[in-house]
Amino acid sequence: MGLNSNRVDHYSGSGHENQVQTCHTSNTANAPVSITVSGETMTSVTVHDVCLPPKMSTLQKLRHRLSEIFFPDDPLHGFKNTSRLRKLILAVRFFFPIFDWAPCYSVELLRSDVVSGLTIASLAIPQGISYAKLANLPPIIGLYSSFVPPLIYSVLGSSKHLAVGPVSIASLVMGTMLTEAVPYNQDPVLYLKLAFTATFFAGVFQATLGLLRLGFVIDFLSKATLVGFMAGAAIIVSLQQLKGLLGIVHFTSKMQIIPVVSSAIQHRNEWSWQTIVMGFCFLAFLLATRHVGMRKPKLFWISAAAPLASVIISTLLVTVFRSKLHGIATIGHLDKGLNPPSSNMLYFHGQFLGVAIKTGIITGILSLTEGIAVGRTFAALNDYQVDGNKEMIAIGVMNMAGSCSSCYVTTGSFSRSAVNANAGAKTVVSNIIMATTVLVTLLFLMPLFHYTPNLILAAIIITAVIGLIDYQSALRLWKVDKLDFLACLSSFLGVLMISVPIGLAIAVGVSVFKILLHVTRPNTGVLGNIPGTQIYQNVNRYREAKRVPSFAILGIEAPIYFANSTYLQERILRWIREEEEWLAANNGSSLKCVIIDMTAVTGIDTSGLAMIKELKKMLEKRSLQLVLANPGGSVMEKLHQSNILESFRLEGVYLTVDEAVIDISAAWKPQP
Amino acid sequence: MGLNSNRVDHYSGSGHENQVQTCHTSNTANAPVSITVSGETMTSVTVHDVCLPPKMSTLQKLRHRLSEIFFPDDPLHGFKNTSRLRKLILAVRFFFPIFDWAPCYSVELLRSDVVSGLTIASLAIPQGISYAKLANLPPIIGLYSSFVPPLIYSVLGSSKHLAVGPVSIASLVMGTMLTEAVPYNQDPVLYLKLAFTATFFAGVFQATLGLLRLGFVIDFLSKATLVGFMAGAAIIVSLQQLKGLLGIVHFTSKMQIIPVVSSAIQHRNEWSWQTIVMGFCFLAFLLATRHVGMRKPKLFWISAAAPLASVIISTLLVTVFRSKLHGIATIGHLDKGLNPPSSNMLYFHGQFLGVAIKTGIITGILSLTEGIAVGRTFAALNDYQVDGNKEMIAIGVMNMAGSCSSCYVTTGSFSRSAVNANAGAKTVVSNIIMATTVLVTLLFLMPLFHYTPNLILAAIIITAVIGLIDYQSALRLWKVDKLDFLACLSSFLGVLMISVPIGLAIAVGVSVFKILLHVTRPNTGVLGNIPGTQIYQNVNRYREAKRVPSFAILGIEAPIYFANSTYLQERILRWIREEEEWLAANNGSSLKCVIIDMTAVTGIDTSGLAMIKELKKMLEKRSLQLVLANPGGSVMEKLHQSNILESFRLEGVYLTVDEAVIDISAAWKPQP
Repeated sequence: MGLNSNRVDHYSGSGHENQVQTCHTSNTANAPVSITVSGETMTSVTVHDVCLPPKMSTLQKLRHRLSEIFFPDDPLHGFKNTSRLRKLILAVRFFFPIFDWAPCYSVELLRSDVVSGLTIASLAIPQGISYAKLANLPPIIGLYSSFVPPLIYSVLGSSKHLAVGPVSIASLVMGTMLTEAVPYNQDPVLYLKLAFTATFFAGVFQATLGLLRLGFVIDFLSKATLVGFMAGAAIIVSLQQLKGLLGIVHFTSKMQIIPVVSSAIQHRNEWSWQTIVMGFCFLAFLLATRHVGMRKPKLFWISAAAPLASVIISTLLVTVFRSKLHGIATIGHLDKGLNPPSSNMLYFHGQFLGVAIKTGIITGILSLTEGIAVGRTFAALNDYQVDGNKEMIAIGVMNMAGSCSSCYVTTGSFSRSAVNANAGAKTVVSNIIMATTVLVTLLFLMPLFHYTPNLILAAIIITAVIGLIDYQSALRLWKVDKLDFLACLSSFLGVLMISVPIGLAIAVGVSVFKILLHVTRPNTGVLGNIPGTQIYQNVNRYREAKRVPSFAILGIEAPIYFANSTYLQERILRWIREEEEWLAANNGSSLKCVIIDMTAVTGIDTSGLAMIKELKKMLEKRSLQLVLANPGGSVMEKLHQSNILESFRLEGVYLTVDEAVIDISAAWKPQP
Repeated sequence: MGLNSNRVDHYSGSGHENQVQTCHTSNTANAPVSITVSGETMTSVTVHDVCLPPKMSTLQKLRHRLSEIFFPDDPLHGFKNTSRLRKLILAVRFFFPIFDWAPCYSVELLRSDVVSGLTIASLAIPQGISYAKLANLPPIIGLYSSFVPPLIYSVLGSSKHLAVGPVSIASLVMGTMLTEAVPYNQDPVLYLKLAFTATFFAGVFQATLGLLRLGFVIDFLSKATLVGFMAGAAIIVSLQQLKGLLGIVHFTSKMQIIPVVSSAIQHRNEWSWQTIVMGFCFLAFLLATRHVGMRKPKLFWISAAAPLASVIISTLLVTVFRSKLHGIATIGHLDKGLNPPSSNMLYFHGQFLGVAIKTGIITGILSLTEGIAVGRTFAALNDYQVDGNKEMIAIGVMNMAGSCSSCYVTTGSFSRSAVNANAGAKTVVSNIIMATTVLVTLLFLMPLFHYTPNLILAAIIITAVIGLIDYQSALRLWKVDKLDFLACLSSFLGVLMISVPIGLAIAVGVSVFKILLHVTRPNTGVLGNIPGTQIYQNVNRYREAKRVPSFAILGIEAPIYFANSTYLQERILRWIREEEEWLAANNGSSLKCVIIDMTAVTGIDTSGLAMIKELKKMLEKRSLQLVLANPGGSVMEKLHQSNILESFRLEGVYLTVDEAVIDISAAWKPQP
């Protein structure tokens, strides 16, 4: 082929380290030449060199890699080429987004924010009380948690629509995990200490993830996993509410489906018919309003106002008829007043520290996932961007501060954020309005909740979590991606049958296994030429793609790593055997050359390099030529560093499959 | 563009399920058309359809996928199209490779095998005794293990060069793990029971992996990991031999580097000068012969014969001068006779069962890794293939049988197999010859070992393991792949500082992390056209590649999965921003179209699909067109199933970047 192609050999000689870098300048060498193949003249055959990527030192490479890992969004690009003062202003606005929008805040915006703030407050107060009960905490903690964290978020947060406060999933998980270690009834003070400590660690964990720009950790909870997890959690939570709805006094504190259901049935004698009638009436009312709100987005205010309305009506009913309704359990006495400080209750030693840290990390990651997902969703809908890592810092700081002011884990709630956006929120001021409303409630209205029945809290919780059962998404997963469905199913069953952390661990395991399987058993296939083009495609997929006689052209669709190098070697040898059989059966020509299309081989490691080397040796023994087409930058670099490139020399590496086929078949022709 | 291209729209209408399958037959529609771009006529622009892969039911897909996962080498391809009798014969030969070669065995082959068999026996006897001591087992167990397992392997095994018997790594690991639970001195019988039980479980585990065709599990111990692991283990083992070489009586049973070294120094008063002098002389002799053997492969017999010679000479010396050399510890009395049965010693209940199972699995996987790697290496050198899964069954059965006949874990030894191959072994008969020699030794020669000094065993072990420290490979790893080097280093330090299982776990963790990192933070880049060709390549790598005005062409080099979909979205938006800036700065044209080259996107999941959908929506808001070029089969299928393909319709999916660029820019030109 040396005669037919005028390609420059960059790999001859020992001093090729410098020469390989010169391929950018070899344009002139790539002049078209004419080659005669099987009688007809093929014009314009230029053989292009395969370049190595620009040379970088190990340190430069590490820097590049680290900046891709930790700063993919280049958060500081606004800071380039500006004066020092401007940089300072930008930095302040970067860390405190409030300075970004506060200067141009107007009365018009305030009007929108007041309406939406009051709307979410009417939702936040009953939900706060209910979710605190879900976490086995005193109801008032839920209101405390709807006051301080929203204020802090309004200074640090960059989402305009996030409604901050306690959320169902994090409350449930905290309740489950802490109750397993210390049942609330046994030692309420210790339980409260552990809850604040877990909140503190959740905040530390969240802020650390944000500071270290490790936000991608939450990506490992894929949507598929979350669909299953949420559905499982929602079912458990709803079943747990049977306690309130049926009026059972002695209910299990376990969280698996079987003990919960059997406990509800076992304590049949404790069922109270007044509670049941009233509970299911309000549940039906709440579900109906929820349905209306979802069907007609314009009527969202009906579903937003329903919980508070139910609380008011049911409290009135119980207050008026309390002599006749003594079977109905109520919230009872609540203290008036602002959040008491709780930094003295943080618990940094002793037996249960591990439980608190573990609970903190798991509730932290779950609440982070919800908060970030909600923030991103509404940002995308309203055409702005939120910086995930910055949001994590905001949520983390908010939880750390919360843990010192009698709050438990908070984040952006999906349901309230949706109401917030629908009610026309324009900035985080709606959170400030909500916090102010909660403040008024805490200072003056607490006695009014004395006769609020527990059953209404149960009904509110069920209405809130029922939307988390997204069976349509699960069906879509089944239709589109069976392995995603498996991840979804395993997190669902894991949460339902075993426990929240194990359910999550199984689901993450399945997701990671999916990636490993993709790499361990990659797609391979035989490519053929689409007549009249330079395109080579899989012959199974494109029937017009025709095999080229004497060639076996194989496409590999994965990086060649330790996990698949043995498989790929076996599979390539099998493809070659099958191609030989096919050629023998179809046109009797013998196989002479194996081309591996490396376009989709995005990386290679030392095991992969050893495989290529051995494959080449094995094929040489069988008088077959091995050619690599279009190896990527990092692959070329590694082939070069490991000196395997040398063994391929001139005739082994081409830029495209087409050039390889034409150049090699030209070399086989006897010279005229 | 509808006017310029005659592409058939497969995605219009609701009944596209059937239509998309027809693209194989649409050849006639792909006639070339002429398009005028920027004044010059570009001929031969055919726009090709992107095909969906052939339709398969879920069951068919599952079958295809499972056969790729478990039967990539198509082990039964020889069975196709043959008579039933022939199939039976093939099956017998498949499961008992002895029937494959026995019928054509000749006297000539026997001569080669006898020579090599005797050679490896001379190595196997001293090594067997030494390795048994390494596992804290009675020396005779090492000889038992060199008798039964080789015989079984010779019936079932398919490698011709594997020399079967105890090996250093598995012995070391078994010794460490069992001693931690039950020190041998405390309860020798229990220790022995646990050793046989661990061997049994190792065999069960190995055979199960083979039967279930899960052989790829051992691929997760990458070469890089093994280099570090072996070096760490070799250092620990060598330091442990200070006990024998210095004549220390009370030595630590721990396996970390620090306790071992400090124990050797603490017990200075026990050092025996006779032992030290004699020990280091023989060590120097053995190392020298090893060096000669490695330098001149023809003189391999020197290094092969040296251990036995050293044993004989040292035993003679001690026997003759035993009155003067009382400081030298010897092996002592050994029973004559064949392997006693030990199936009654297997231990299937009680406190230490967990330890036995864990030890069995870890020694099982390590010995499997060594055995398979050795088998593959010599098969490749001698141009035949071994079936990894079948080898696993052979090794597993051999260990199960071994555990019932007083043998501990055995596998193919690298050093002895190399000697075997060098000595001219042709078939597994050399293993039978070796076993016969061991039999003779067991029956008649055992008393001769009474005065064999322990120091010679220590010297033999050091000589054997020193070759496992492959610092050159480690250097090569550093040069070629920093992350592989990290895996190597972490397994090295893990083994040296913590323990064998944890060291291995860390190393596997690092390896898996490498794969996840590759997927989580894939390479992306801007592609440009190489003038005069249809080739698009990374503009950073190919300086001749030129950006196309008004287009941003991005290449993504990874499957789009939950782990990277957020990253990719951010990164693509950043690329678009940067391209807009570049275009504005360089030729003032504005960006109109974003083409994503999906060639290297080998898979997509539901998170990835959601990302594509959202990206398209975001770009549409900014009046940018999003186009996918060359999506692979599975990606097309998922785009289709999730109905995203419909939103792309005609103008959104092209077979090549080139066709996309020409077709879209033609559509922008005002019609004449």
